[in-house]
Amino acid sequence: MPLSDQAGLRNDPQMTKYVYDFSEGGMDQKDLLGGKGANLAEMFNLGLPVPPGFTISTDACRAYLAEGSEPAGLADEVTAHLTALEEARGKRLGDPEDPLLVSVRSGAKFSMPGMMDSILNIGLTDASVEGLARAADGDERFAYDSYRRLLQMFGTTVLGIGGELFAEALDALKADRGSDDDLDLTAADLQGLVGTYKTLISEHGGRDFPQDPRDQLDMAVLAVFDSWNTERAVLYRRQERIPEDLGTAVNICSMVFGNGGDDSGTGVAFTRDPATGAQGVYGDYLVNAQGEDVVAGIRNTIPLAELEQVDRAVHGELLAIMERLEHHYTDLCDIEFTVEHGKLWMLQTRVGKRTPEAAFRIAHSFAEEGLIDLDEAVDRVSGAQLAQLMFPRFDAHAERQLIGRGMNASPGAAVGKAVFDSPTAAEWAARGERVILVRRTTNPEDLAGMVAAAGILTSRGGKTSHAAVIARGMGRPCVCGAEEIDVDTGRFTAADGTVVEQGDVISIDGTTGEIFAGAVDVVDSPVVRHFEGDAAVEDDDLVRAVIALMEHADGVRRLGVRANADTPEDAARARRFGAEGIGLCRTEHMFLGDRRELVEHLILADGPEQQQDALDALLPMQRDDFTGILEAMDGLPVTIRLLDPPLHEFLPDYTEVAVRLAHEQEHGEDTPRTHRLLAAVKRLHEENPMMGLRGVRLGIVIPGLVTMQARAILEAAAGLVAAGKDPRPEIMIPLVAAPQELELVKAQVVAVAAEVEQETGVPLTYSVGTMIELPRAVMVADQIARSAEFFSFGTNDLTQMTWGFSRDDVESSFFSTYLEHGIFPVSPFESLDVEGVGRLVELAVQKGRAERPDLHLGVCGEHGGDPRSIHFFDAVGLDYVSCSPYRVPVARLEAGRSASAGSASA
Amino acid sequence: MPLSDQAGLRNDPQMTKYVYDFSEGGMDQKDLLGGKGANLAEMFNLGLPVPPGFTISTDACRAYLAEGSEPAGLADEVTAHLTALEEARGKRLGDPEDPLLVSVRSGAKFSMPGMMDSILNIGLTDASVEGLARAADGDERFAYDSYRRLLQMFGTTVLGIGGELFAEALDALKADRGSDDDLDLTAADLQGLVGTYKTLISEHGGRDFPQDPRDQLDMAVLAVFDSWNTERAVLYRRQERIPEDLGTAVNICSMVFGNGGDDSGTGVAFTRDPATGAQGVYGDYLVNAQGEDVVAGIRNTIPLAELEQVDRAVHGELLAIMERLEHHYTDLCDIEFTVEHGKLWMLQTRVGKRTPEAAFRIAHSFAEEGLIDLDEAVDRVSGAQLAQLMFPRFDAHAERQLIGRGMNASPGAAVGKAVFDSPTAAEWAARGERVILVRRTTNPEDLAGMVAAAGILTSRGGKTSHAAVIARGMGRPCVCGAEEIDVDTGRFTAADGTVVEQGDVISIDGTTGEIFAGAVDVVDSPVVRHFEGDAAVEDDDLVRAVIALMEHADGVRRLGVRANADTPEDAARARRFGAEGIGLCRTEHMFLGDRRELVEHLILADGPEQQQDALDALLPMQRDDFTGILEAMDGLPVTIRLLDPPLHEFLPDYTEVAVRLAHEQEHGEDTPRTHRLLAAVKRLHEENPMMGLRGVRLGIVIPGLVTMQARAILEAAAGLVAAGKDPRPEIMIPLVAAPQELELVKAQVVAVAAEVEQETGVPLTYSVGTMIELPRAVMVADQIARSAEFFSFGTNDLTQMTWGFSRDDVESSFFSTYLEHGIFPVSPFESLDVEGVGRLVELAVQKGRAERPDLHLGVCGEHGGDPRSIHFFDAVGLDYVSCSPYRVPVARLEAGRSASAGSASA
Repeated sequence: MPLSDQAGLRNDPQMTKYVYDFSEGGMDQKDLLGGKGANLAEMFNLGLPVPPGFTISTDACRAYLAEGSEPAGLADEVTAHLTALEEARGKRLGDPEDPLLVSVRSGAKFSMPGMMDSILNIGLTDASVEGLARAADGDERFAYDSYRRLLQMFGTTVLGIGGELFAEALDALKADRGSDDDLDLTAADLQGLVGTYKTLISEHGGRDFPQDPRDQLDMAVLAVFDSWNTERAVLYRRQERIPEDLGTAVNICSMVFGNGGDDSGTGVAFTRDPATGAQGVYGDYLVNAQGEDVVAGIRNTIPLAELEQVDRAVHGELLAIMERLEHHYTDLCDIEFTVEHGKLWMLQTRVGKRTPEAAFRIAHSFAEEGLIDLDEAVDRVSGAQLAQLMFPRFDAHAERQLIGRGMNASPGAAVGKAVFDSPTAAEWAARGERVILVRRTTNPEDLAGMVAAAGILTSRGGKTSHAAVIARGMGRPCVCGAEEIDVDTGRFTAADGTVVEQGDVISIDGTTGEIFAGAVDVVDSPVVRHFEGDAAVEDDDLVRAVIALMEHADGVRRLGVRANADTPEDAARARRFGAEGIGLCRTEHMFLGDRRELVEHLILADGPEQQQDALDALLPMQRDDFTGILEAMDGLPVTIRLLDPPLHEFLPDYTEVAVRLAHEQEHGEDTPRTHRLLAAVKRLHEENPMMGLRGVRLGIVIPGLVTMQARAILEAAAGLVAAGKDPRPEIMIPLVAAPQELELVKAQVVAVAAEVEQETGVPLTYSVGTMIELPRAVMVADQIARSAEFFSFGTNDLTQMTWGFSRDDVESSFFSTYLEHGIFPVSPFESLDVEGVGRLVELAVQKGRAERPDLHLGVCGEHGGDPRSIHFFDAVGLDYVSCSPYRVPVARLEAGRSASAGSASA
Repeated sequence: MPLSDQAGLRNDPQMTKYVYDFSEGGMDQKDLLGGKGANLAEMFNLGLPVPPGFTISTDACRAYLAEGSEPAGLADEVTAHLTALEEARGKRLGDPEDPLLVSVRSGAKFSMPGMMDSILNIGLTDASVEGLARAADGDERFAYDSYRRLLQMFGTTVLGIGGELFAEALDALKADRGSDDDLDLTAADLQGLVGTYKTLISEHGGRDFPQDPRDQLDMAVLAVFDSWNTERAVLYRRQERIPEDLGTAVNICSMVFGNGGDDSGTGVAFTRDPATGAQGVYGDYLVNAQGEDVVAGIRNTIPLAELEQVDRAVHGELLAIMERLEHHYTDLCDIEFTVEHGKLWMLQTRVGKRTPEAAFRIAHSFAEEGLIDLDEAVDRVSGAQLAQLMFPRFDAHAERQLIGRGMNASPGAAVGKAVFDSPTAAEWAARGERVILVRRTTNPEDLAGMVAAAGILTSRGGKTSHAAVIARGMGRPCVCGAEEIDVDTGRFTAADGTVVEQGDVISIDGTTGEIFAGAVDVVDSPVVRHFEGDAAVEDDDLVRAVIALMEHADGVRRLGVRANADTPEDAARARRFGAEGIGLCRTEHMFLGDRRELVEHLILADGPEQQQDALDALLPMQRDDFTGILEAMDGLPVTIRLLDPPLHEFLPDYTEVAVRLAHEQEHGEDTPRTHRLLAAVKRLHEENPMMGLRGVRLGIVIPGLVTMQARAILEAAAGLVAAGKDPRPEIMIPLVAAPQELELVKAQVVAVAAEVEQETGVPLTYSVGTMIELPRAVMVADQIARSAEFFSFGTNDLTQMTWGFSRDDVESSFFSTYLEHGIFPVSPFESLDVEGVGRLVELAVQKGRAERPDLHLGVCGEHGGDPRSIHFFDAVGLDYVSCSPYRVPVARLEAGRSASAGSASA
C-alpha cells in the first residue's frame, strides 16, 4: 500500500494536496514535483530500489512565497507522510536510540544555480548522534562527522551564516592536530568541532541549533523555499527567461550511507559514454564513501567495471537497472547510487548531459536500434552542437600540457603568442603574428586588440562578461574567468606554477575552456571534411551519425537554406555545404582593393561626367564579379544587393587625414591633394553614418550607380545564358523605407534590363526585391510589396534600428551589463529578439503576403544561421534563411528540427 | 430651358455623360467639374451674368487617359452642346461672317502648376479673322492681334513648340519697327506676324495650323487632358500627395471681349482686402483691355472704386454681385470679370487666397456678423497662419528699398551683412556680427554657414531646395530661388542695378519672399505682445480676432498643451502663452557652462569614488535648477527627463583634440593632460553616437547618475512643499527599449524617494514614466506600461529610428532630392509621418492603454507643435502635446480645430 494512502489526508476535497509520496508521482510531473522528485517517483514506481521518501510540491512553495508563511495544512501533511515513512523504515526521525535521518533537497523544474542544494543528516541532535553511533556498530567518528556536517550545512544554508566561519574552525582544528586531512581527525576531535559549530550557530545564527528534529526538517524545507529568491537564482531566471512563479519542490528522502564499511560505497554512472557517445556503461565507484566524497575527489575512484570484483551481485543489479532506465527513458541516463551494506540504493537519475559528439552518436544509435524514430533523433541534437563539431579542434592525439581551465565562452581552438595588452596585440598581429590576448578582464578600450587576436583569455568574468560577449560576436575562441591563472603585467602564472611570459605560445580551447602551454596541433573537424567531400572520414561514427540525421532533416524541412557569399569561392563552398542559392551577395568588397582608386574618382568627381567615367571603368569589373558568382551558383538563385554602405567608407578616416594635414602644415608641406581629400572626407563625414546617406538613398542621389550595377548583373546573366548556363539573379535594393524609393530604383533596373535584352538579344529572367531592415519598411510593407517580388529581412540592421543601438558601439560598451541584469538573455545580434524585432518581422510578412500572396520571403541577417531564430523564421512562414557558408549545415539541421514533431521543444 | 436639354443626348442610360452645361452643375461638384467649372456653374445658377458655356467632366479625362483615345460619345456630346451654345449666342463657331469664339481652360479639383492653363479665341481662322474684324466695327488690328495670340497659344500648348520661337519673331518685328511696345504695331504688322506664326507652326509643329474651328477645339481639349501628365504636374501631385487618377475637367466658354472700346474693360476683385482682411471690396480695373493685359501690367489699372465714375451701372451691379457671392460662399471671394460694351460678364470666382492676418480677421468678422459659427471660424484659420503672425516682422511704417523677390521658403524677418561663402559667414558670426548668407544654391558644405547666419538667400532652387529644407528645419528665415538677383563671387546685382557687396547690410522677409537693401526696422508681432501681456495691443483688430478664436479653441479642445522648457524663464513664458505644464524639461544643458568641469571629472573619473565626488558636487546645483522650474510651474505638472545624450558630448571633439595633440607633439609641447583627454575622448568615441551609450543605458551603466538626478528633483519638490507650494514632478526615463530597463531605473528612483521622504518628513507626490522613442518600446509597450505611469512619445528619435536616418546627417545630404521626387511630401521631422511613425504611435497607445487604462499619454517631440501632427495626436487619443513655448498658442489653436467639427478638413 502506498504510504500516502496510509496517511489518509485526502478528506477535504477543497484543500490543495501539497505532499506526494514517491509512489504517487512520475517523470511527467516535473511542474509539480520538480525534476528530481519526478524522476525519483518514476524509479520508485518502476520498482527500483529508491530509499523511501516524499516530495513537497511546487504548489506549496508558490503558496508559501505568495502568503509569506507556511500554507495551511502543509504541516499536517508532512506529519502524516513522515509518520508513514517512519513506519515503513521502522525508525523515528531523530530517535535518540536509532534515529531515522533524512535528506532535504531542492528540486525545481529546471536545474538552477544559486538555489539551496541539499541538507543531509536531518534528525541528528545531541541525543540522537549517540544513537547513530550505536546503530553504526559504535562508530562514533562517523556519527560526529555526520553531525558536524549537518551543523555546517544547516548553519550556512538555513541560518545564512558565512561558510568561511565553519571552514576556519575546521582548518584551525586540523592545524592544531598538525594534519591537513579530515581523516586524521578523531571522534573526539569531531565531537569538539560539533561544540565549536554549535557556538558559532548561537553567536551568528540568531538562535541555537534546533534540538527538535522536526524543527530541523521544517526549517530546512522553508529554507529551500526561500532559496528560490536568492539574488543569483533570480538573476539566473531573468537571464534564462525562466518564469518567476514556478517555485521549487522539496524532496525528503530517508538517508542511506555508503560509508558504513567495505560492503558499502557510492557512485555515479552514465548509461553511455557522455563524452563520445560510445555504447557501454561508464562511471566511477568509491568504496566506503558518501556521495560528496566522490565529488570532492578525496580518494581515487575505481571504474564502474571494477565494481564487479567488489560486489558481483550489486554490479549485475546496477547494470540491469541502467539498461532498464535507458530503455525506459529511451535516452542516455546518468544516475547516482549508494551501496549500504551490500544493498543497492538509487538516489537519483536524469537524462544525462553530453558533449555534442555524444549527442549525435547517441541519437543516431538509438534511432538505428529502433528505440526512437528519426524525428525524435533529430530533435535530440541541435544546430549549436553541430556548429561546435565544425570548429577546428585540437588534435586528440597531440601532446598537450594543460595548465588551467576557465569558462568555455566562445568555441573554437586558438594558438598564438600570449600578449597582455591591446596595443601590443594589434601591433604584433599587424606584422603577421598570431596572438592570444590575455587580460584580467577586457573593456571597450581593448576592442582593437580583441579584433587582432586569434583568441582571448581572461581570468575574471563569466559568460556574460565583456570579453565573452565580444568574442562570441566576432566568432573568436575565448576562455574567460580562468581564475586558476594569475594575470600580472606582462605574464601570467598557472596554478601548477608555469609562468607564461609575453611572447610565449599558448593554446586555448574555447569549446572546453582548457588552457595549454605551447602550441597544440589543430585539426579540421571530420564533419567539415565530410562536407568538403573527403571520403576518408565516412566511416567515422560521428560522421555517419551526422550524415544520417542531416539526411532526415533535409527530408522533412520546409524552410530553404541559402548562403551569404560575395565571391565565387564562397559560393562554391556554400554549395558543397548544401546551400540552395545565395541569399545575400554583398557588392561592397567589389569596390575595394585595386578598385579603390576608381571609387575615389567616383566620389571626388567634379560633376556628372567625371562620375560617369568612373562608373564606366567599374562596369566591366563588376560584370566579371557577377559572372563568377552566377556561374558558381548556376541554376540556383543569387540575390545580389546593390551598394549599401556610406561612401566615406571608401575614403580614409577623417581624423587621420586631419592629423596628416596638421603635420604637413607644420612643415609647410601641405599639398592641394590633402586639402582636397580632407574637404571630401569632411563633406561625406556623418555623425551617424549608420543612419546616413547609404543604401537605396545612394541609388537615388547617384542614379548612375544603380544603372551601372544593374547593367553589370544583367550583362553577366546574358553572357551566361548565351553560353548555355542558367543564371538566376535577384536584384536586391537595400535600406528601403518607403515604396516610392523602390519604385524609383526599380524603374531604373527595368529600363536597363530592357536595354540589355535589346543589345544582346537574350531574354533575361531576373527579379527585383528589397531588404526589409527599417521599421518604416515594416509599417508600409504592403505598399512596398506592390513593387517588390521578394523581401529579404536584414535582421542585423532591423535589430539596430528597432533597439536604437549600433552593434559596433554598444556590444562593447554596455552589453555585458545588460546581460548581467537580464535585460536580454542573449545578445539580440546573436539570437533574434522575438518579442520586439520578431514581431516586426511577423508584421511585415503578414502585410507583404496580404498584398502579394506569392511574395518570396527570406532572411539574410546573421540570425539566419542562429538555431533559435531559425525556428522562429520557420514559424512565421519565411521561404528560406541565408547564412554564412559554414552555418549552412547548422541551418539545414535546425530547419529540419523545426519541421519535425519535436519543434515544440526547441 | 437649359442648353443640355436641347442637346437631348441622355437616351442611352448606359452611356456615361461627359459634358455638362453650366446650368447642370454647382459648387459641390468639384470632383466632376473641377474647381473652375463648379464655380462657373454655381454663378450661372445664381442667375449671374456668366458667358454661356459647358464643361467636359473629369470622367472624360480619366477615360481618355485610360484608353489613350477620346472616349466614345464625347465628340457627339460636344457637338450637341456646341450647337446649343451657338444657338443661344446666335453665332456659329468660326463662322467667317461673325464667328463665335470660345476659350478652352483646364480646371482640376485642385489648382495645379504645370498643367495647360487656357487657349483663348478658338474659332479664329484665316477666314473668320476677317469676320471678327467686321463684327468689331472694322477693327482689323484687334482681329489680327487676337488671331496671332491664338496661334501662339495653340502652337506652344497644343503642338508643343518652344515659346521662344514666337517671342523671337515678335521681338524681331518690333525691332524692325523701332519700337518695344506691342501697341505700336499696326494691323498690317500683325497680319504679317500671323503669316510668320503659321510658318513656324508648319515647320515645328508637324502640321499646319488647323483651319477647321472644330479641329482647333478638339485638339485643345485633348491637349488639356494630356497636360494632366506633364512632368511638372506629376511631380507636383506626387509632392502634394494628390491622387494620380483625379483627372482634369475642361471648360469651354464663349469669349467676351473687354477690349472693344472705352465702354469695355476687365478687372479682378476681392470681396475684402486679402492682405489685411479689412472690410470693403478691393480690386483693379483696366479700361479697354483683356484679362491677360491686367496680369501683364502693360497699363496702369484704376482702383475698383473708380469704376463708379466710368460706369455707375456696372459698378453697382458688380458690388451687388460681390456681396451676393460673399454671402453665398460665406467667405472672401475673388472674381475675374469683363465689361463688354457696358455689359458685365463674370468670368470666374473662387474662395480667395489671403494672408494669415486676413484669414484671422475675416473669420472673426464673419463670425461676428453671424454668417458662420465659431467652430467654422476656427476651422478657417490655421496654426501655420498663427505661427506666421508670431514672427517678428518688418515695421510696416519703416522705410525700405525693395530690390528683389524670391520664394518665401522659411518665414520670419532677418537683417544682416551679406556674405557669400559659408566659412566667412561662420567667421563673422563668431565675432558677433549678424550675417545673411547669400549663395546661388547651398549644399551640405554650407551647413556651418547656414547655422551661423540670421537668414539665408539663394538665387536658385525652390521650396524643396537644400537651402529651403535646412532653413525650415533650423527655423531660419529664408528666401530662395530669387532669380531676379545675380549672385556672383562676393557680390550680387539686383534687377534694378543695385549692387550688394560682401558686408553690405540687407534685409530679407522669409514670410513674403522680399529682399531689401539696407536694414529695415523689425518689430515684435502684436500677437506675441498680446500673449506677453501687453494691454496696448488689445484694440488691434488682428489681436481681437486672435483672442476670440483662441478662446473658442481653448473651450472646445480635448487635447492638453504643455511646453518644452529647460529654464525657469522659459517655463514662465510658456505659462503666459497658455501652457498647462511642462512636457519636456531636458537636463543636459544643466551639465554645461560652468559645470562642464565637474562633468569632465565625472567622465574621466578613476573609479567609482571620484565619480561619486563629482556627482555629489553636482547635486545641489541640480536641486536649484529643479526648484526654479517647479516653482515657475507651481500647481502644474513638470516632466523632467533624466540625462539623455552620450557623455562624449560633454567633452571636446575627437578630431580637434587629435589635431591639437599633433601640433603639440610637433613642438615637443604635448602635455599629459592632452594625452589623457584624447584617450578619454577616444574611449567614449562612438561611430554612431545616436545609437550608442545614452539615455537609460547611461543610467544602468552609471547608476549614481540616476540617483543624483532623482534626489535633486525630489529634494527640490520636498523643499517647495515645505514652503507651501504644489510641485508636481514627473520623472521621465529616456530611450527605454525593454521593460527591464525601466524597472531597474524606476526601482532606484523609488528608493531615493523613500529616503528623501524619510529625511525631510515631507510626503512626496511624483510619478515615473518613460519616453517611447524606439520601435522596440512600441512593440513591448504593454510590458513597459506595467511600470510606466506615463508615456511621452519622443517622435524626433522615433522618426530617426523608424526611417533609419539621423536628422543631422540626412536633411542636408538628401532630403531635397527626396522632396523633389515626392518620396515624402514634407520632411518627416517637420510633420509626423502618419503612415509609418504614426502607426507605431498608435500601436503603442493601444498596447499601453490595454495594460493600464489610465496611462497618461503625451508627445514631446517637435511634432507636438506641428499643426498637421496635432490632429493626428488628437485622433489617436493622446492626453497632451508639448512644444516650444512660442508654439504653445499654435498647438492650442490646432487642438481646438481638431476638436471642432471642421477637423475633418484639416
